[in-house]
Amino acid sequence: MSREVTLALDAMGGDFGPTVVVPAALEAVRTHADLNLILVGRKSELESALGAIKPGRSRIEIHHAEQVVGMDESPAAALRMKKDSSMRVAIDMVKDGRVHACVSAGNTGALLATARFVLKTLPGIDRPAICTTIPSLRGHTHMLDLGANLDSKAIHLLQFAVMGSELVSAVDDISSPKVALLNVGEEEIKGNEQVKQAAALLSASSLNYVGYAEGDSIYTGDHDVVVCDGFVGNVALKSSEGVARMIRQFIRDEFTRNAFTRLAGLIALPVIKGLGRRIDPRRYNGASLLGLSGIVVKSHGSADTFAFGHAIEIAMIEARKGVPDLIRARVGALTLPEEQAV
Amino acid sequence: MSREVTLALDAMGGDFGPTVVVPAALEAVRTHADLNLILVGRKSELESALGAIKPGRSRIEIHHAEQVVGMDESPAAALRMKKDSSMRVAIDMVKDGRVHACVSAGNTGALLATARFVLKTLPGIDRPAICTTIPSLRGHTHMLDLGANLDSKAIHLLQFAVMGSELVSAVDDISSPKVALLNVGEEEIKGNEQVKQAAALLSASSLNYVGYAEGDSIYTGDHDVVVCDGFVGNVALKSSEGVARMIRQFIRDEFTRNAFTRLAGLIALPVIKGLGRRIDPRRYNGASLLGLSGIVVKSHGSADTFAFGHAIEIAMIEARKGVPDLIRARVGALTLPEEQAV
Repeated sequence: MSREVTLALDAMGGDFGPTVVVPAALEAVRTHADLNLILVGRKSELESALGAIKPGRSRIEIHHAEQVVGMDESPAAALRMKKDSSMRVAIDMVKDGRVHACVSAGNTGALLATARFVLKTLPGIDRPAICTTIPSLRGHTHMLDLGANLDSKAIHLLQFAVMGSELVSAVDDISSPKVALLNVGEEEIKGNEQVKQAAALLSASSLNYVGYAEGDSIYTGDHDVVVCDGFVGNVALKSSEGVARMIRQFIRDEFTRNAFTRLAGLIALPVIKGLGRRIDPRRYNGASLLGLSGIVVKSHGSADTFAFGHAIEIAMIEARKGVPDLIRARVGALTLPEEQAV
Repeated sequence: MSREVTLALDAMGGDFGPTVVVPAALEAVRTHADLNLILVGRKSELESALGAIKPGRSRIEIHHAEQVVGMDESPAAALRMKKDSSMRVAIDMVKDGRVHACVSAGNTGALLATARFVLKTLPGIDRPAICTTIPSLRGHTHMLDLGANLDSKAIHLLQFAVMGSELVSAVDDISSPKVALLNVGEEEIKGNEQVKQAAALLSASSLNYVGYAEGDSIYTGDHDVVVCDGFVGNVALKSSEGVARMIRQFIRDEFTRNAFTRLAGLIALPVIKGLGRRIDPRRYNGASLLGLSGIVVKSHGSADTFAFGHAIEIAMIEARKGVPDLIRARVGALTLPEEQAV
């Protein structure tokens, strides 16, 4: 499937701003002949970063925005004071239908608050959720929420499940994705009240709910969507990143221990690189803010050009599939027993 | 420091019962001349597992207990119906002062319920917590709670912090362990109510509270104790285990891809083994049930002899240091502003 897609990029966001976003934009238009990009940010900076004529340059437009949302700025301050920020203007373009989606590596809290204020949540969705793919033994798994909602009720977990299921169904072409609910694995402790109630709602829904997942089964690939409260999801994801980073460091340590291990490392280098590619977090960069009436993709603040390019691809796919409309339709069809709507 | 320690081992618990516990017991008495063990379980099975005279055999006693708590049995059923189980009798021995501590690889829920019922929590401690060490870039970190408490209030997080701090101070000889509170790392989302209130209590306490830790900083070694709700801790720990297992599988995959990579794997084998040792979960087996008026160490249900041996060593160290008394003293000295005691 291919049709023209236009995206707005918050060119000033993230730790590196235009120095990452502009090269990523050039690479993306070079690779995708059907992609148009609008770089939103300070015109002079963007023009000098773009430099001389390059392939696909004609499909990149610059839209000036004077302000920049700081990485530590409070969401409320950003919302009130930064109406001409690159972040806000990029989201406004989604709202106005000028672009199909936007991508930002900016401050997560401000992005969430601004996107929610400008785009609004879809009917039947109380709160947007952050969803991303994580590697698994059999490919990847989608997980949500990853930090937008810190005290989710059961009904919110159900909404996350619907959003995640529709996303996976669209982007991975799976007709009835397996949805699991993250829970503790102790034999006799069957979860807290929120999780138990959510399990009841999910069982009664038309989703392909397969039951509880323990933390370790996130990575087995047994589930297509793993649903959890944002506090839990954020901690699980970051803990996993921490372990992966520690193991990478241990591998480096072990291979640089002495002359023999250095030689072994040299010989094993292609293999180690192969491993590195499989767990390269840049290949999983790009989290979807689901539940809004528009597509917003969050890149990691420290993303490099390669990683930001991956976030652009996610926005393209969601734009082509029209993910918000799919979620809107599914939520609309969801009938909830009144007494369970806790 | 060395003085005689006597431990009761639930010899029937875990996935493998005596086939793991008995060899681990023999190895432990062989290694530690000052260790006495009481194997609790079915006498005939234990006698045949012990077999002929072996070094240290005279320091292993068998105490018959007819019943066994099943790995799926409900805590309530185990508590009511299994008063002569190997698990219960081992805990009773701690209560009666016949042993300094007990170790069980049995059903976690039943072990928690039984230990709490028999031993009671220490004055000032509402609920016991599960604490274990996890590897970090600089050694290890203690983390609690890992699943005993699924809806912890701020005051419970404070109690966990006191318990964890005293444990680390005793077993790692750190005079004022750095205590961190697990939280989400989004810039502007500063945690849920429970965590914010706990941060206030911790700041006002005499503990060396260093602030919030994000999921990934569990593994950096920056903190000695990481405190969290049991639901969150359980998910974080199991997610981490899942990632580590996935990476191990990827390493195997990459080194067995073709003839060249197999050769590289052969050459790198000592290095890979070195890595394996550093992240071997068996070296971290043995979780402490803290907050009780007695020492109970939980081994993983699927632990092998080496791993169970590690749990025995943890029980020995806690027994020598008298960890429950240290916690009792510290909790007693804790003064809480009344209005903060939420």
